[in-house]
Formats: sequence, structure tokens, C-alpha cells
Amino acid sequence: MAVIDMGSNSWRLVVYGYEPGQFWQHVDEIREAVRVSEGIEATGRIQDEPFDRALHTAHVFNAFCEASRIRDVVALATSAIRDAENGEDLLEAIREDTALDVRIVSGRDEARYGYLAIANSTTLEDGFGIDIGGGSVQLMRVRGRELEDAESWPLGAVRMSEAFLPDGESGGKAIKALRKHVLKQVGDWLGEEGGRVVGIGGTVRNLADAAERRAGIEAEAQGYLIERDALDDLIDDLASMPVAKRGNVPGIKPDRGDVILGGAVVLSALMEAGGFDALEVSEEGLREGAFFELFLDDRDPPLFDDVRQAAVINLANRYEGDLHHQHHVAKLSLEMYDGLADLGLLEPDDDDRELLWAACMLHDIGTAVDYDDHHKHSQYLILNAGLPGFDPREVGLIALIARYHRKGDPSVEDLGKLAKKRDGERLEVLSGIIRLAEQFERSRDCTIGAVQLAQSNGKVTLEASTANGDPSVAIWSARRNADLLGSAIDREVEIESHAG
Amino acid sequence: MAVIDMGSNSWRLVVYGYEPGQFWQHVDEIREAVRVSEGIEATGRIQDEPFDRALHTAHVFNAFCEASRIRDVVALATSAIRDAENGEDLLEAIREDTALDVRIVSGRDEARYGYLAIANSTTLEDGFGIDIGGGSVQLMRVRGRELEDAESWPLGAVRMSEAFLPDGESGGKAIKALRKHVLKQVGDWLGEEGGRVVGIGGTVRNLADAAERRAGIEAEAQGYLIERDALDDLIDDLASMPVAKRGNVPGIKPDRGDVILGGAVVLSALMEAGGFDALEVSEEGLREGAFFELFLDDRDPPLFDDVRQAAVINLANRYEGDLHHQHHVAKLSLEMYDGLADLGLLEPDDDDRELLWAACMLHDIGTAVDYDDHHKHSQYLILNAGLPGFDPREVGLIALIARYHRKGDPSVEDLGKLAKKRDGERLEVLSGIIRLAEQFERSRDCTIGAVQLAQSNGKVTLEASTANGDPSVAIWSARRNADLLGSAIDREVEIESHAG
Repeated sequence: MAVIDMGSNSWRLVVYGYEPGQFWQHVDEIREAVRVSEGIEATGRIQDEPFDRALHTAHVFNAFCEASRIRDVVALATSAIRDAENGEDLLEAIREDTALDVRIVSGRDEARYGYLAIANSTTLEDGFGIDIGGGSVQLMRVRGRELEDAESWPLGAVRMSEAFLPDGESGGKAIKALRKHVLKQVGDWLGEEGGRVVGIGGTVRNLADAAERRAGIEAEAQGYLIERDALDDLIDDLASMPVAKRGNVPGIKPDRGDVILGGAVVLSALMEAGGFDALEVSEEGLREGAFFELFLDDRDPPLFDDVRQAAVINLANRYEGDLHHQHHVAKLSLEMYDGLADLGLLEPDDDDRELLWAACMLHDIGTAVDYDDHHKHSQYLILNAGLPGFDPREVGLIALIARYHRKGDPSVEDLGKLAKKRDGERLEVLSGIIRLAEQFERSRDCTIGAVQLAQSNGKVTLEASTANGDPSVAIWSARRNADLLGSAIDREVEIESHAG
Repeated sequence: MAVIDMGSNSWRLVVYGYEPGQFWQHVDEIREAVRVSEGIEATGRIQDEPFDRALHTAHVFNAFCEASRIRDVVALATSAIRDAENGEDLLEAIREDTALDVRIVSGRDEARYGYLAIANSTTLEDGFGIDIGGGSVQLMRVRGRELEDAESWPLGAVRMSEAFLPDGESGGKAIKALRKHVLKQVGDWLGEEGGRVVGIGGTVRNLADAAERRAGIEAEAQGYLIERDALDDLIDDLASMPVAKRGNVPGIKPDRGDVILGGAVVLSALMEAGGFDALEVSEEGLREGAFFELFLDDRDPPLFDDVRQAAVINLANRYEGDLHHQHHVAKLSLEMYDGLADLGLLEPDDDDRELLWAACMLHDIGTAVDYDDHHKHSQYLILNAGLPGFDPREVGLIALIARYHRKGDPSVEDLGKLAKKRDGERLEVLSGIIRLAEQFERSRDCTIGAVQLAQSNGKVTLEASTANGDPSVAIWSARRNADLLGSAIDREVEIESHAG
């Protein structure tokens, strides 16, 4: 399936590959900075040059879809075309030249697609969504994962840059005027309630990438938290440099350099109006919203039951046909985790438990690269494919637990500045657990059905009960891999086996 | 299919996944340092402790095979068991306890498996093969890719270490005596003919890893060339340190520390006897030989027609179901390569042409990780999965050409010390070509059937002929990606399209 997003700034054709109920994946993409809204603010009309660029791009996108024999093509036109006097003329011209049945998306529908993207790529239950496009801004209010209310305003990054910061203008007065304009329009609707807020759209993605680089963090933007203070520092920096240099700021796309300052000020004003100290970033947006509507069409609203779980299972299914072994490693790991908590040897924590589960489901995906060093390849695949619903630190930890499921002394060095204070200990104990679970399940056949823990004389005994077959591989492997857990909990660890 | 290799030093169970005619891949492995030959040199018999370790390991391996429901299990016992007085007693005990039908491999058969591994993982046509095991050494003479002659000697690393360098002995006299012993036994057979020689087995792999680290090279050992001088430096170093430290030398496995010096001296003596200045390394061996016998059982001898081509196609098939697009990118790339050579704009070179072809076949495998940055993921997958038949520099170049097929300024920095003098220019022109071929084939449907080159007034024109459909995507994409090739050949590059 392909979604064509005819935005005010860039147009994008994104192709999704999927197997219903199994997995989905972004498989191809073409992007063109059509900038259809160029000059629209002053005249209300799509100008001749942008009109021609748009027509030509539609022609190219259509040829691509026909050549690639993509079954479903959804083409969506948003704010710029929606609001232009001659928007319908452009669509008519496109329909004459191509097979694309372009649909103008209302502000309300645009917000709904944004909501579907947010609700399917973050854990937001109650809070707000912000989608900053080139032409418009959509705000959403979410309650119990449902879209409670939504509205669209003509406050997009390209439009506001043209109106308030023309020709790279960046003086304090102009910025203040833009800020005031935004506050005035959305102030009543947002009402400084505070709480959680998620941002989407190209402006937000670029600002997140730039904020991460400034903070010395190397990670995907998905799930990153932009603090309002960090955003305002970035705005000061952008305003102090000539417009031509803004596109060279690490994280900012060159063809967005002339509208990034305007977009950043709009975002800052929205955060002020909403009373938000920080914004969570999702890299998904309108296009994924339209995709989810198809992919999850058996649900109403089309939402994953549990975003984190769906992300983990999606990634696992992309690499492995049968998750029997993975589920069993997870079961044994969680039994050990809970057993250690019962013995008072670790502080139980739902988040840690979920990270352990996720790593168990993904620990072997690296064999798709090569059996040798597959634990390292699993780390690479997890980090690079990403896991929507988890923040960059959590993705990093899951990748590290998978990394250390076989070998090596756990180190959180790879987390860099994302590491929190006790993450070293956390990683050691979770790696110690998965390493043993993997060995209990070494022959991949659920020979060891369950593990129980007991403690006496300062020793911890893991009693592995045999569910079927011969436990010798499991016990032999586990005994030579118990050191890590022992050192993590500072106890001698013994492995015993008995018939189940 | 699983191969169990009951060697004199370590025992290994390796599982291969495969689809006949499509791909094969190493999917699991268990290794145990059984050291069955311990004490055998003095007594001629497998001692009680190694006997018990062997029996227990066989039990574990058998349980693994049963649990994993592996269809074909081939269990092979080599030199130590073959030569021990009570070798047959051990096998009898194993047969009683397990379902393993262990076969004692004769020296001649062991050499044949080594030959199959070498002939299917290197480009050796004429030359020698050396397989250093724990108990025995096999030498092979290869002519026209056929095994012309082979012989086995009881000169393995464990056996020679026990006989000549007991208890970590490393004095010059003892080393000299070992060297003399080897030369005397194999001197007549090898006869200082020189030429190409390929080495296999754990000793060779460890020495190659150690030699690479000393040379500051980070790469797989496959295809690496160990110079005799570098080997002799390594021997001096190993001899100068206490035996307990030898297993800590980067590249040497800890449980091989006490026999690595003996193995290195044996190798050095074999190179002297054969008049070889350098040894090519293959990471494949007896186990892969046994696997290829099954995988290629429709051929006699069971050999790939072209090892490099087979390695590239194998890797491509592991990640993609249909190679139509890849073959077409390769075709267009080679047309441009040959066209540039005809115009005198590059020096034609068969090796470069083959690297370009390989990169074309593999440029998109990174989409298995994620569409975003898939060019970087392709580089990672190629480097880590490896390509038998290519040396580490060539694998690095293929990975870099794939890396730069979409974006970025080509740099050979990642090659590190493997880079040769003109590799920067080489990478630029090959990346410039693949980048254009990928754009001509942007819609993945062979719209552009062929490319012809012409030169006039210092401009190079690429004439793209349309084979079917609408060439607008191809031409639009190619025009915006012609800069790299232009700069590589120092010419303006124009893209023209005409009906085919």
C-alpha cells in the first residue's frame, strides 16, 4: 500500500509492506520539496511555479505506483491545497494526467490521522497531540486513548514563516509577534492544562533531531522528550544565524532551513499555551495514520491493544517465522525475575520487567545477519529498526539485554548520555536472567517447563523442572552460564533439575 | 542439517539452514573444548577423564539434535579417535547412549572435506590446502579446482604441543626441534613449490584473527592473507610470554592458549616446507565440507560453479525473494561501466567490474533492517555476513559501494588499513555509477531497458532507452543524482531519454 501525502511543504510517497495480523514495515519512499504553499499566504492562490512542480511530482508519483504495481494508493491533500482558491484546479489537472484519486482531507480528518499515528506509536492515554504541518497545525485532545476533540488552524511552519519572518527575518520583535499570534488563536482551546503532549510532523522531527545532537545523544527521535527550555535555546541559536545557515544545523534538513525557525516558534508558543514543559516526539504522522486505518481495519477505532507489545511482536515477526522459543525464554525469564523479587534480591519494577520481556522476544533476531555474533546483530537491528512506544533509553536497554544474552560483560557505555543512574545494575541483573533462560531453552523445545527459586545459606538455587525430554543440554548449558546472575545478585547460583 | 565434528581439541555441533538452489546459512552452534586427545600422545589411548567428557558431550549434542528435530545429523570423528587404541570403545559407548551414528573419517576423507571447504570458499584453482587440526594435519594439492592428491600426518596442534612443548615450554631449542620434525615429515610431499595456499581449521582462524589485530585491521578472517613474516613475529611474541597469557592475546581463544604456539610453529614450518610466503585464510572447514556434500549433491565434485558469484547470490537470496530489480541495476551499471571504459574515462578492470556487480546485487538488503538509512544497513549486513571468495578489502569495498548507492560523499575511511592507494577514486566512480543505475531503475520495473554513453564538447550524455511504460520517474530521479558520477569522471553528465 502507498500513501501519498501532498503537504504544504514537502510531498511524500511512502510504501508500506504488510501481512495483516503479522507485521508491517516501511519499504520505500520518494520525497519532493514541492513547496506548494509558496506565495499562498499573500495571494490565497497556488502560484504558477508551485502549480507546475506539483503537477510534475504527481505525474512522477503516479508513474512510480503504476510501475511498482502497488495495490492500494491513498493520495491525501492537506492544508495548502485545501485552503487555496485554485486547489481544486490543481487536483483536476492531476486527475486528468494521472490515475491518482486525490482526496482533500478536512482539518478534522487530518487531526484524526494524526491521532491514529500518535495513539499507535506512543503510550499516550490522556493528553494532547500537536501536528505542525507546512500550512496548518492540528491540535488533538485524547482521553482514554480516544480522540475527544480536535481542531485545525492555519498556523503551519511555511505559512507562519512567510507571514511573520519573511526573507529570513529573525528579530526579537517579529518572533514575539508570531508567538502572540499563535497564543491568541489557540490559547482558549488549550487552556494551560499541562500534562502529556505528543508532537508529530516534519518540523517536530527536525527539531527533535537537532535537540538530540545538541544534547550529545545519538538515537532515533522516536519517543525523545524535547524540554521547552532546550527548544527555546535552539530558537535563540537559529535566530542568531543567517537563514542560509539554518539548514546546516545538525538534525535540520537543508530544504527546511528557511522555515524551521518559524516552526520552532510555533511549537514553543503551543507549549506555552498548553502549559507543557516537554513534548514527546513521534516520527509517525498523517501517512501512518492513513496506513493504520487500513492495516487495523478490523478495529474501531483502528488501534493496537498495546503499542509496546505490538512494536515488539511486529519486529520479531519481521525476522522469525515461529516465536515459540522466544515466548518460552520470556516465560522462564519472568519466572526468574519474579522469583528474585519474592526472595528480596531485586526491587520489582514493571518497566524493567517489560524491558526484559521485550529483549527475550527479540534476542535472536540478529541471526538474520549471521549466526556468529548474532547477539551483537540483534542489538544493531533493535536500535535501527526502533520500537515505537519505548523511549530511546528503553530501546537502548532492550538492545543491550539482547546483546548480552550470550556473552560479554554487560556495560551501559553504548547508552551514552541516555543512561540513568542505576542502569548499569539494571542491565547486569536482566542480562543475567536472560542468559540463564536462554540456556534452559538451549535446545529450543521447552524441555525446561518452569523455574522455581529458593534461597538457603546465602545460596540461590534455580530448580528447573523438566516438561519433556532430556534436560541434559539445558542443565549443562545453564551451569556454565550462571556466573553473571550470581555476580548481579551477589549470591552463589546453583542449578538443579527435577522431573516436572 | 547438523554436522558434529568430534575433533581432537574441540567438539562442535553446527546447524545449517538451507533451501536447495537458493541459500544456505549457519543457524546454530554448540562448542565444547572436549580435548579428547589429552594425554594420548604419551599413551596411545584416550584417558579416562577425556573419555567421560566426550561421552557426556555426545549425550548433550544428541539431546540437542533430538529436541531441535534436525533431520540430517552427520557425526564425524577425526584423528584423535581414529588413532587411539580405544577410539572404537568410545564410539561404541556413544552409540549405546545416543542415536548418533558416528563415523570415523579417514585421513584421506578428512582431507577431502577440507578440500571441499576450500574450493567452495576461495577462488583457488591451482595450489595447496593446509588443514591443521588438534591431532592431525592434512595437506591437499589442488589442480583445476580438483583434488589431485592429499595426505594426513599426525602433526596436529594439541599433539605437537604435548610432544615438543609440554607444560608451556617455549624455548628456542624445543621450537626448533618441532619445526625440524614437521619439515622432515612433509618436506618431500610439499617440495618448496610455492604458489597459492589456503589454510583452514581453528589454529589458522585464531592465528589470522591475532595477525589482523596486530596489523590494526578489523575484519572477518575470511580471505585474509597471513604473511610468513607476520606469523614468525607472532610466534616470537607468543614464545616470550608465559603460557597462561597466550590465551589473552587478542584473537586467540582462551581455551586454545596452551596449544596455539605449537600450532603456529607447525604452520610456519609447513609454509617453509612448501615455499609459501603467505597463507590465505578460510573460516570454513571439515564441517562445511560435509555440509556442501549434501547441499551440492547434484554436482560431482560438489562445487559451486563460481564461488564469488555464489556467495553474492546466497546473501541476496537470504534477504530478498525476487532479484529482478537487483539484476537490472547490475545490468545498467555494467553498461555504464563499459561505456565509460570505451570513452576512455576509466581504466577497465575485471575486479572492479565484479565489485560493482556484487554491490548492485546487494545494495538493498538493508531494507530488511529498516527503510530509513537502508544503504547503511546494507553495508552492515554485507560486512557482518561476509562473502567467501572475496578478501576483506574487497568485501569492504562492496559494502561501501552499496552504502553510497543513495546518499553521501563516498569515503574509504571505513576500510582503515585495508585501503589501497587508488581505492578512494575507485569507490567514487563505482558509487557514481550505481547511484545512477538505481535511479534509472527507481520504480523497480525495468522501465529503462538500456543505457548508452556518448561524449561531446567535454560533456558525457547518458542515453536511457525506455523499454516499457513511462520513464518520468527514472529520468527525474537520475537527473538529480548525476553529480557524483560527474565529479568522479570530471565531466558534466547529462541524462537523455528516448524510446527504446
